[in-house]
Amino acid sequence: STCKLMDLPKITDIRGNLTFIEQNIHIPFKIKRVYFLYDIPGGESRGGHAHKNLEQFIIAASGSFDVILDDGVKTKRHHLNRCYHGLYVPKMVWRELNNFSSGSVCLVLASEPFEEEDYIRSYSEFKKITNKPLLKQVI
Amino acid sequence: STCKLMDLPKITDIRGNLTFIEQNIHIPFKIKRVYFLYDIPGGESRGGHAHKNLEQFIIAASGSFDVILDDGVKTKRHHLNRCYHGLYVPKMVWRELNNFSSGSVCLVLASEPFEEEDYIRSYSEFKKITNKPLLKQVI
Repeated sequence: STCKLMDLPKITDIRGNLTFIEQNIHIPFKIKRVYFLYDIPGGESRGGHAHKNLEQFIIAASGSFDVILDDGVKTKRHHLNRCYHGLYVPKMVWRELNNFSSGSVCLVLASEPFEEEDYIRSYSEFKKITNKPLLKQVI
Repeated sequence: STCKLMDLPKITDIRGNLTFIEQNIHIPFKIKRVYFLYDIPGGESRGGHAHKNLEQFIIAASGSFDVILDDGVKTKRHHLNRCYHGLYVPKMVWRELNNFSSGSVCLVLASEPFEEEDYIRSYSEFKKITNKPLLKQVI
């Protein structure tokens, strides 16, 4: 699987808009956990880790922020600022989130429960694992 | 199961706060679908239906709104205005959402994929089904 910015269904209505995500249809995994970041001071940064197995889907539920992805070969920045766009991040991708707007909410759907052992928190360790010949680029 | 306002885990951090929800742990069902309401004009209303089988968990991911629940016997209003509070709504409860603040986002975790046949959209039909002797109150 590769990182992918995805358009989500949007049902427009004068009473407000609705976007929905069904597991295994709009995202390529089953949702086992949902988490969200909020009360984030404007301009703040988060992240700086990779996951050995976890897949995620990141949405700017309110406001905007940037997601910087790094597969060990190249990096790419995505600016998320719409509820109906989501960023799929497969396993073994280093991610950082920054440039949060004041009042923003980052919603994340995750394929696994929380497991500390699944985290790679050292960038040098991440580079060591990914810096192999014939590595498939995912971003 | 009965309707329940639940405190969710909150990991406080100067870079922003984080709240997480794991299926079958913080909510009593598996998450099969996630949807959110946004771009809602201030003061607008939504809802006005019940589900035959679907269970939901409703969170004010941004801003605030009221959820009015009706189990056919009595009604109760909940004001949601915190990311780390969620309202569990079991099946066969009539719900309306109103009093949305401008810029609010209503996040809903659902136990089933979308199925039109699961909806009860007529209040009189809902009352007919629920208006039975010995009915267990759920709100």
